[in-house]
Amino acid sequence: MDVISVIRTKRDRGRLSDEQIDWVIDAYTKGQVADEQMSALAMAILLNGMDRAEIARWTAAMIASGERMDFSSLPRPTADKHSTGGVGDKITLPLAPLVAACGAAVPQLSGRGLGHTGGTLDKLESIPGWRALLSNDEMMGVLRDVGAVICAAGDGLAPADKKLYALRDVTGTVEAIPLIASSIMSKKIAEGTGSLVLDVKVGSGAFMKNREDAAELARTMVGLGTDHGVKTVALLTDMSTPLGLTAGNALEVRESVEVLAGGGPADVVELTLALAREMLDAAGLKDADPAKALRDGSAMDHWRRMISAQGGDPDATLPVAREQHVVTASASGVLTGLDAYAVGVAAWRLGAGRARKEDPVQAGAGIEMHAKPGDSVTAGQPLLTLHTDTPERFDYALQALEGGVTISPSGTEFKPQPIVLERIA
Amino acid sequence: MDVISVIRTKRDRGRLSDEQIDWVIDAYTKGQVADEQMSALAMAILLNGMDRAEIARWTAAMIASGERMDFSSLPRPTADKHSTGGVGDKITLPLAPLVAACGAAVPQLSGRGLGHTGGTLDKLESIPGWRALLSNDEMMGVLRDVGAVICAAGDGLAPADKKLYALRDVTGTVEAIPLIASSIMSKKIAEGTGSLVLDVKVGSGAFMKNREDAAELARTMVGLGTDHGVKTVALLTDMSTPLGLTAGNALEVRESVEVLAGGGPADVVELTLALAREMLDAAGLKDADPAKALRDGSAMDHWRRMISAQGGDPDATLPVAREQHVVTASASGVLTGLDAYAVGVAAWRLGAGRARKEDPVQAGAGIEMHAKPGDSVTAGQPLLTLHTDTPERFDYALQALEGGVTISPSGTEFKPQPIVLERIA
Repeated sequence: MDVISVIRTKRDRGRLSDEQIDWVIDAYTKGQVADEQMSALAMAILLNGMDRAEIARWTAAMIASGERMDFSSLPRPTADKHSTGGVGDKITLPLAPLVAACGAAVPQLSGRGLGHTGGTLDKLESIPGWRALLSNDEMMGVLRDVGAVICAAGDGLAPADKKLYALRDVTGTVEAIPLIASSIMSKKIAEGTGSLVLDVKVGSGAFMKNREDAAELARTMVGLGTDHGVKTVALLTDMSTPLGLTAGNALEVRESVEVLAGGGPADVVELTLALAREMLDAAGLKDADPAKALRDGSAMDHWRRMISAQGGDPDATLPVAREQHVVTASASGVLTGLDAYAVGVAAWRLGAGRARKEDPVQAGAGIEMHAKPGDSVTAGQPLLTLHTDTPERFDYALQALEGGVTISPSGTEFKPQPIVLERIA
Repeated sequence: MDVISVIRTKRDRGRLSDEQIDWVIDAYTKGQVADEQMSALAMAILLNGMDRAEIARWTAAMIASGERMDFSSLPRPTADKHSTGGVGDKITLPLAPLVAACGAAVPQLSGRGLGHTGGTLDKLESIPGWRALLSNDEMMGVLRDVGAVICAAGDGLAPADKKLYALRDVTGTVEAIPLIASSIMSKKIAEGTGSLVLDVKVGSGAFMKNREDAAELARTMVGLGTDHGVKTVALLTDMSTPLGLTAGNALEVRESVEVLAGGGPADVVELTLALAREMLDAAGLKDADPAKALRDGSAMDHWRRMISAQGGDPDATLPVAREQHVVTASASGVLTGLDAYAVGVAAWRLGAGRARKEDPVQAGAGIEMHAKPGDSVTAGQPLLTLHTDTPERFDYALQALEGGVTISPSGTEFKPQPIVLERIA
């Protein structure tokens, strides 16, 4: 087996054999296949595709590159959720304790943000004392005691994917559905969850800008999960405008706590409940009532225990950015557009996100929204509040917002968009 | 300018702008663009192509990455030849002194072999004392004194191409017409020749297996040369069977000397004269008579002076391999096929070629052919003599020849193929 013949097979639109896939993933993980060879193969895969059997084998080979976790000793069924990433997407924060409160175990291995979408771990790290890095034993302990844990994936899980993802990030080969699907699913399957709900975002603020691509990605991932014995369902959800009224780390924690307290923005509550119902269904807990768990405080109770178990203080005051800048409405009418990508990039520039993996993020930075599409606005009223510790970046963030806010006199052309666009099972 | 946007442009079937091309070639030469990024771009170029203007700019950027030579001080017009490589292709050896004998200056920068095709420098290095490495001043001196020089290209010429070629070799991105054409032409244009004749090989032993690809490559290169003010002509020539009766280093030198002495195999003489006429025409020496220069000894005289000027002894005995093995005809009839690729791989395995750049080659190794397609043969007569210093490789070489020799009882299906298939100007 040699790497050039593997590259040529895919370059010339052939099918990679099981042996070629197993060999190339193993050899790449061990450093026997060089980065420049793997990136050429990744580009050939991006441009020439892989069929379902190739993607399944590629995923299996990435799983086999590392350890697999096993939650079969837990007394509860496991349910996990993965979002492809969006602006203001804090759903994991209320969702994990909510689903735990309803009887499932939620082993939520999460990531950090890169680019204009935030990362769940960055958000939780704005809570004083909270730790993302747990050993496998600590993770299992929190899961057993609380029913939900949100932590960083260990280095032992799908190391081939870690290496390949870092490579794709710098070689223009991120946007390949077979590679995205196998990257996500190799980690989720290696993690050992019994069921999985995928939140596949569609729209300007998402990775997938159009619905056809998102649906193809969703179908590919559902197929991969199913083939590996994980009960998998996907929801295609709207990401043309940010979720909720905040984008930023501590700002989103605050909003998540509002949801857990029975309040919070309607879209965040709606999507949290929709995903909770799918997770509970997939876990076989069809009689659970997540809306009740939000009302009766049991979800909040699980949140507090989960945060405490990972060293966080659920009662601590959250960090606030040193400076604020208010953007007001330029005209009266109806807010017909608040572009997710524009808001995401602005929040990133304010310090909520990072440009490179090793950069720190600002806990308090981000954007508060005072109106959402469909709302009536009056000229001069506050639309957005920008938060940052580095006020010299306000101008740069405001540039990102240019053209991202649309106000129309009558608003008649505004068509409300449902949050959940499609369910793929 | 950032490399990921350049990669994405080509990945998404866009045109690279002049600025993108200039930047990426310069940054890659300086090490600011990493190998894994360039290989992803190379794969995108291979799969999505470049238009004529992109290829021209890419070539210009590679020329600009290094020095340019200048032969304008020579009293004679310069003419160069480039072959895309074949089996038994020793044509440069008799051709350069022959064209010099007819009044042109021939600055022939040549390469070493890799894979199943031999390299001109490897062949000449079988002559005791001969040196391939000359300084620019030495090269100019030989060219001025003799009229022909065959030597290694200096490191200063198109360094971007050197780096990119080595990368393509290990990443399955060699077979891209825009990259092949720009690689060849950047070196030839930087070398500073006034006219150039391209020998584009077609057939099993060539890089281009089919005529359409070869014609496209030829047209691309002729366009590039013309755009840069170099009078450029291409001949598409047959490489379905080896050229002449030898494949190997010293074996081919011996055959070349036979041609310079007025003898040698008919196909080698025919192609040498055809290329010589094109070079002399392109150099404006329309009255020259290369056939006469072979007959009257003036080509041989230039050969001897050229070899001596580079430290070689034209009268030295050439190295002979330690062991021989004779392959005989399995049946009587007509030899209808002697596959160039099979012979090339067998000669390579006998030690005439190298698998890695740093490997040595055997001067005496290779294959002598005792019959060519169209010849009548008798069962048991010698067809091939294999030469090597490492007789343990005979079996491995014989495996390569399996299926490469075809004898037919009547030979009625044999269609003689002209050497020169097409002229592209």
